Amino acid sequence: MKIDEIPTPAAVIDAAALNRNLQTMSERLPGSSLRPHVKAHKCTALAAQQAALGHLAFTCATPREVLGMIEAGVGQDLLLANAVLDVDRLKQVARAAEAAGVIARVAVDSPETIDAAHRAGIRDVIIDVDVGMPRCGIAPTEAGRLADLARQHGLAVSGVMGYEGHLQMVTDRDEARERVTTAMKLLRSAHDDVGGDIVSTGGTGTHDLHTIGLEHPTGVTDVQAGSYVMVDTQYASLQQGFEQALTIVGTVIAHHEQRYVTDVGLKALGMDHGDPAIDSCKVWFCSDEHTTFSSSEQTFHLGERVHVRPAHVDPTIARHEYLWLVEDGEVVDRWAIDLRHW
Amino acid sequence: MKIDEIPTPAAVIDAAALNRNLQTMSERLPGSSLRPHVKAHKCTALAAQQAALGHLAFTCATPREVLGMIEAGVGQDLLLANAVLDVDRLKQVARAAEAAGVIARVAVDSPETIDAAHRAGIRDVIIDVDVGMPRCGIAPTEAGRLADLARQHGLAVSGVMGYEGHLQMVTDRDEARERVTTAMKLLRSAHDDVGGDIVSTGGTGTHDLHTIGLEHPTGVTDVQAGSYVMVDTQYASLQQGFEQALTIVGTVIAHHEQRYVTDVGLKALGMDHGDPAIDSCKVWFCSDEHTTFSSSEQTFHLGERVHVRPAHVDPTIARHEYLWLVEDGEVVDRWAIDLRHW
Repeated sequence: MKIDEIPTPAAVIDAAALNRNLQTMSERLPGSSLRPHVKAHKCTALAAQQAALGHLAFTCATPREVLGMIEAGVGQDLLLANAVLDVDRLKQVARAAEAAGVIARVAVDSPETIDAAHRAGIRDVIIDVDVGMPRCGIAPTEAGRLADLARQHGLAVSGVMGYEGHLQMVTDRDEARERVTTAMKLLRSAHDDVGGDIVSTGGTGTHDLHTIGLEHPTGVTDVQAGSYVMVDTQYASLQQGFEQALTIVGTVIAHHEQRYVTDVGLKALGMDHGDPAIDSCKVWFCSDEHTTFSSSEQTFHLGERVHVRPAHVDPTIARHEYLWLVEDGEVVDRWAIDLRHW
Repeated sequence: MKIDEIPTPAAVIDAAALNRNLQTMSERLPGSSLRPHVKAHKCTALAAQQAALGHLAFTCATPREVLGMIEAGVGQDLLLANAVLDVDRLKQVARAAEAAGVIARVAVDSPETIDAAHRAGIRDVIIDVDVGMPRCGIAPTEAGRLADLARQHGLAVSGVMGYEGHLQMVTDRDEARERVTTAMKLLRSAHDDVGGDIVSTGGTGTHDLHTIGLEHPTGVTDVQAGSYVMVDTQYASLQQGFEQALTIVGTVIAHHEQRYVTDVGLKALGMDHGDPAIDSCKVWFCSDEHTTFSSSEQTFHLGERVHVRPAHVDPTIARHEYLWLVEDGEVVDRWAIDLRHW
């Protein structure tokens, strides 16, 4: 099957670029120093590629992601890096992990999340620490107290995590390094009080600014990077050596005056980082099922395929059923995006 | 089941508000003068409610929507109001419509879309006319020529459609009325050249500005409104007498300093119209699986449910598997959002 025969709109991956991205990150952060975040692709077949490169610990954002990974038999150490109060879902995670012989660690940042983990039969928790991004995560100075509470409930405390999400897009690398170091000092101070083997942090935008190893005063054990796999137009601006491997392929369905219209609309895109891009074209606007664009450099004929580059990969993928893998214009595989929803 | 027992994030409909919205629009545009657009809800169970109120003609944006409606047995006259070049999908539509004894009309705006419809065995087409929104639609002066071409291919031409999407959010109603009238003059001039029984247009934002009936020089036969069913924060600003019936219900999963975090993230929301709203709260920002917010008026406890109002309903619904119908805090039904994807 040729790329032009895929029904559109379709999430299409350049398989060679994907492999280069996976290899590049694996060389920088080998084995357990990378804890790939599956929320970026929500696809167990892609996670299996990461596992094949030696990364057997994964990060998940939702119970469904953890369950899907266990069902697919991918990964040995799964971290649910989110505050979850849904005891029923946590119970499913605990049972599935036990049956499969997989470690499922759950982030906690409050007495309530500890109570939910305890009631669900979760064995391992990790203290989520606020390192500067105003979201989940307890204040570093309170992390030790929370770890004590978890241990009083009979839970094993694996260590700490803290996501410096507010620093992922700092383009001045010196400034980024300094601020990441400050954030990691907070995380390590929390770790001093919490104990455990794990200090987990980071993302693609800061993956190159972390020191791996607890012997370094701001060192961490693993980086939770996800976006490097496919890279969107925003992450590409950081020029970290990763390639934009995902495009949403559309058909040019209309051409009137200067404007073209493709069937890749905002329902097929994550729009929170703004409009998508089309190479050598000007995107006018997106509506539900269409993107209107023009080009002074290129002409398109009706029926021709056009590659739309999403501004934000993660929510884009979550809108599609399949990832189509293409090599030299040929479809070589189709992967289900099987970790979607909650 | 109580509303608080629904696993979150969840797309929840206030069933009473939904019914009032459906009734209100049905009184304003009874029977065939309303051609409800299913792209707003992508749910055949909801479309069945519209059909029960006497609307048997529907608008669809994708072949899958048409096929899903036929499979569900909802509607007798389905308009695929989009330029489609995918002959395989159009063939499925043509076959399913014939087998079910349903009319499936397909919009065309170019020789290529006519050719695709012809090759697929589609019988009825409608000429999509550009009435001022730069998207699909042929120039009004060329519509007659295109209709002739369609008839030469043996296709029946049902009439014209033209969507004045650029006027849906004009808040000054006098200005809106004047501009809609101008747009409808264009559409009617195209209809003079095209012929056929149908002059279809409009949306929720302009539904009250159209005159129904071809005896009026700018009159139309039907309005393709969709958003009135649930109304988002943007449409609500028009104050047309519809209620916001949809909220994405989340759980408050974290509370640190002044901030709360709920598990309704941007993957559960359409973000193209901006951030969602939470009553009496200030939304700080959305990330993939979270929304951070605060409130000077209200306190929340962990585990409490919070109603997040999406800025744009259509792409929000397309991200969920189910619509949960709630009445007086009790879940009364759960409908599959079965028309999603393409």
